[in-house]
Amino acid sequence: MKLNLVHQTKLKKSILNDGITPILRIQNEVLKAIYDFMYKEGLTQLMPIILSPLTDPLSHPVCEAQINYLGQKLHLTRSMIFHKQIAIARLEVKGIFIMSPNVRLEMGNLERSNKHLLEFTQLDIELKGGSALEFRSFIERLIIYIFSRVKEFCNEELEKLGIEIRIPQKPFNEYWSWDLTKEYGDNYCTEVSFQEKDPFWITDFEREFYDREDPIRNGKYFNYDLFYPEGFGEALSGGERDYKYDILIRKIKERGQDPKQFEKYLELAKQGILVPSVGGGLGIERLIRFLTKKDHIKDITLFPKVPGNKIRF
Amino acid sequence: MKLNLVHQTKLKKSILNDGITPILRIQNEVLKAIYDFMYKEGLTQLMPIILSPLTDPLSHPVCEAQINYLGQKLHLTRSMIFHKQIAIARLEVKGIFIMSPNVRLEMGNLERSNKHLLEFTQLDIELKGGSALEFRSFIERLIIYIFSRVKEFCNEELEKLGIEIRIPQKPFNEYWSWDLTKEYGDNYCTEVSFQEKDPFWITDFEREFYDREDPIRNGKYFNYDLFYPEGFGEALSGGERDYKYDILIRKIKERGQDPKQFEKYLELAKQGILVPSVGGGLGIERLIRFLTKKDHIKDITLFPKVPGNKIRF
Repeated sequence: MKLNLVHQTKLKKSILNDGITPILRIQNEVLKAIYDFMYKEGLTQLMPIILSPLTDPLSHPVCEAQINYLGQKLHLTRSMIFHKQIAIARLEVKGIFIMSPNVRLEMGNLERSNKHLLEFTQLDIELKGGSALEFRSFIERLIIYIFSRVKEFCNEELEKLGIEIRIPQKPFNEYWSWDLTKEYGDNYCTEVSFQEKDPFWITDFEREFYDREDPIRNGKYFNYDLFYPEGFGEALSGGERDYKYDILIRKIKERGQDPKQFEKYLELAKQGILVPSVGGGLGIERLIRFLTKKDHIKDITLFPKVPGNKIRF
Repeated sequence: MKLNLVHQTKLKKSILNDGITPILRIQNEVLKAIYDFMYKEGLTQLMPIILSPLTDPLSHPVCEAQINYLGQKLHLTRSMIFHKQIAIARLEVKGIFIMSPNVRLEMGNLERSNKHLLEFTQLDIELKGGSALEFRSFIERLIIYIFSRVKEFCNEELEKLGIEIRIPQKPFNEYWSWDLTKEYGDNYCTEVSFQEKDPFWITDFEREFYDREDPIRNGKYFNYDLFYPEGFGEALSGGERDYKYDILIRKIKERGQDPKQFEKYLELAKQGILVPSVGGGLGIERLIRFLTKKDHIKDITLFPKVPGNKIRF
């Protein structure tokens, strides 16, 4: 009985003093900073989508996450890319943002990754009619604003975690993916991430069909990823969007995908309803991991879901 | 060819001038007001949960929404009740809030309801150690603050929609569910909702096992629902929580449920880790429907999912 009590007290201590409170206080300040920034910029927040017949095909394979509801197959959102494009076309707004939960059931072989969770939250942003440069400038200001707010208002938490926040300067370094591939081979993102001291851009990737391709230099793209330094890896992924029916169809076919998957979306493109836009998604958990310098992304969340592992809550 | 162009222009017009922009601008102001209020009150925002082995049993039947991931069964979140209780126990905070997407795959027989969507967002709040009265007072201040902000900052949109916002006074009317049942029978919520002019409370319902039962008057509960007037119906549902192992086990069994479903949660209760708390969930879409006086809840969202209907996006 006494042993049992000691055991219980230990358990209670371990669950209560696991150091998560200062991390989630920093996350809270980050979220506050994001809302303040977005609203100051005049963007309109939309509610997330969880289930839809339509979701991001992604450029890497994941296990299917779908539900059958009264005979209709619904995917869990992998990203809101198509919903963002449709929303931007339908609304009289400058831009939109969504705190969008994404479910990506990574295969068990990502079990040793310290950067992946099965579900995470993406700050998903889309600006009507903007360019890649405009969007990157917007994100640089957002990142500087978030880092500055955490540095100013989370003194106590940063001290507890033994962390100093370094405020990056605008413009962030930019590398061209084709140069990096030549220099470092396929693993160039990780290599450069270890060398840099501040967040930096890599631009022009061949990937999903919705990223805008240069119409006079096919195979080159108006897209970008933001990376954290010190090996923390990818922060944001995005690009200008293709929106014209013929171009979308060609690119879908080039990627060996079936246009039927995107039928309702392509109907809107065919009707000329879609419009030019630019955007990207910033992973909240990866941002918190970078700011709190945690080794594993599971350490910044109360209820971690690591690929390949059993899920407790 | 010309006919086709005319047809396309019509389609484009109908999708662009469907009156959703002012509604979503009002929603944007509501969200801004919520964040400002929560942060001023010192609450900590947590990220939502989408998949978990553990979710709300609910007091009404819905179709199962679950995913199999590497042999483990995961539910789509119906509400974050248990995660809120665990988070409150683990964190040194005054209270928490989450913009929590809830998926409730209602049966097709709700297809004529104008209040239900298959997925919606719940502003889910939990205060550590608080009482039902404290929580209700908190919510009344929140509602008054939101309504006042919309009235002050959404003039143009309200005018476009032909709406006037009425600011309620504190304290809101309170009715006891047992009195109402005697007077109106089972449909009392709707009856009273049509009679009232401002949001009002109904208290003390027999429902899910986690709502705290009066220890000396078994069968009476420290819980409440907030309702909108004019027949708009339920706004928020919540209560003080039971958290002691023996009480939880008894109540689960009384409801004919299997404690195994809640195993990991009950383990924490057994270890004495859970703590007293009070909270509730406010439906964002229903709040926007009430403020914009729309007949059907589908009219306030860009991508509606109505029970029993085919889902387009």
